[in-house]
Amino acid sequence: MKVGIIGLGLIGGSMAIDLRRKGFASEITGVEADTVNAAAAEKIGLVDRVTGFDECVDGSDIVVLAVPVGAAVQMLPKVLDRFAASEDGKDKIVMDVCSTKEQLAANVKYHPMRKNYVASHPMAGTEYSGPWAAMPGLFDGHACIICDREESSPKAVRTVEKLYETLNMRLTYMNSSSHDVHTAYVSHISHVTSFALALTVLDKEKDEKHIFDLASGGFSSTVRLAKSSPDMWTPILTQNRDNVLRVMDTYIDKMKAFREAIADCDEDAIRELIEEANRIRRIIR
Amino acid sequence: MKVGIIGLGLIGGSMAIDLRRKGFASEITGVEADTVNAAAAEKIGLVDRVTGFDECVDGSDIVVLAVPVGAAVQMLPKVLDRFAASEDGKDKIVMDVCSTKEQLAANVKYHPMRKNYVASHPMAGTEYSGPWAAMPGLFDGHACIICDREESSPKAVRTVEKLYETLNMRLTYMNSSSHDVHTAYVSHISHVTSFALALTVLDKEKDEKHIFDLASGGFSSTVRLAKSSPDMWTPILTQNRDNVLRVMDTYIDKMKAFREAIADCDEDAIRELIEEANRIRRIIR
Repeated sequence: MKVGIIGLGLIGGSMAIDLRRKGFASEITGVEADTVNAAAAEKIGLVDRVTGFDECVDGSDIVVLAVPVGAAVQMLPKVLDRFAASEDGKDKIVMDVCSTKEQLAANVKYHPMRKNYVASHPMAGTEYSGPWAAMPGLFDGHACIICDREESSPKAVRTVEKLYETLNMRLTYMNSSSHDVHTAYVSHISHVTSFALALTVLDKEKDEKHIFDLASGGFSSTVRLAKSSPDMWTPILTQNRDNVLRVMDTYIDKMKAFREAIADCDEDAIRELIEEANRIRRIIR
Repeated sequence: MKVGIIGLGLIGGSMAIDLRRKGFASEITGVEADTVNAAAAEKIGLVDRVTGFDECVDGSDIVVLAVPVGAAVQMLPKVLDRFAASEDGKDKIVMDVCSTKEQLAANVKYHPMRKNYVASHPMAGTEYSGPWAAMPGLFDGHACIICDREESSPKAVRTVEKLYETLNMRLTYMNSSSHDVHTAYVSHISHVTSFALALTVLDKEKDEKHIFDLASGGFSSTVRLAKSSPDMWTPILTQNRDNVLRVMDTYIDKMKAFREAIADCDEDAIRELIEEANRIRRIIR
């Protein structure tokens, strides 16, 4: 199968590596707006060649949108338009891999080629970005959500399922709106709390140059996501604004409950909050 | 050297393993208030034997207080009292390994045996606790802070330095008050933010049973510290109350700045905050 990947960063690049390695892709073309990244992707050999947008869409059986969600919202209707204008377009598929789904879905809801689009979100990644961050096995064993599958043609869904099975992902299904609520809780809020933690300690570092000398493994793991790319995360946070704000409000309330218990030196209340938080042990290995 | 370890949990137990393995300790006695943990520590072979407090203090050249800081504050003067009452007490040493220092220091400031106490904080650990969490190499390569060294006898400091060099720790020195400010920033706040994150998502889980099915590596790493023990963390947060509250206030301000930028869909402001947070890359591997 001929695969076109638009956006040769961590996700697009890692997908290219494994789709080729495991025989799903017979040929991979890529599109990359950043010229340095494009040259690197070609040099590393992530794709057979880097092309323009039109050539990639026209020459591929399946197009993967692996760009930040703001750009994907703009590109998705253009890909479907191009399918509509081409002779073999009815057999082509476009899929995205973005972390928010409602606006993408809304944007092509009435597009005549809507059935050729499959919305998906492979829940894997690292805090690094760019083609040099791409790696084999990135998706292995992780969850992948396919959204609004009834809006896509069964054949397109089946092909995308096959693609993710090739990557050894665990498939799960929900609508775009549930997806965006879930990811606000188990992914987006973690990023915001890490960013805020980094900002807090970096502020202090202005006076205390050596504050990080003592940072331990616990701090590093909590702040790790603060390295995440602004290109990726700025549109996620705006596109999932209402859900993210709701989770942040709950979170700020929990912080305030802790603050009050500590301010009162109320050991019983602090202990109770920690014991309640410890229930996460049941859930996270 | 005869070592007595009071508190046979993650830290005390791991110290026992390596002090014996590396030849620093010729004999190790332990004290453990929890009877199940005491039996386990003996069965695992962390110590030669579990004894009472008095016997442990009397029979050891160096006593390590490896209990939660609330208990350590109570025990430290009792150990020094016992040194004062014994013939060879002037040559004995007691050290603690606690995460907050000011109250411990204040509590024995005028004790006649103050010079026999060395305040230290090995900055290593995991989110697990109990003797079964103890492991070889836990301290390897991590930072260890020795506090207020001018308050201890040079000989006592030298022995404790040798102990930590045996554990392959990087030694650093500061006063108790700076220690408590630093750890509030690079350790205590991370725990509070993890607890609050766990509480936030666990709250939602009450309605959405499957919310954790999608939790990815990023979420797990951010929430990992929420598994930490209330026995250890309740006294840390009250004893370091003022510093922790100050850091929490800065943190809540940062969260509110993010909240405002997201509420306004102000992509420039969000991007700026993330780019600023990304400066953590310089610092954390």
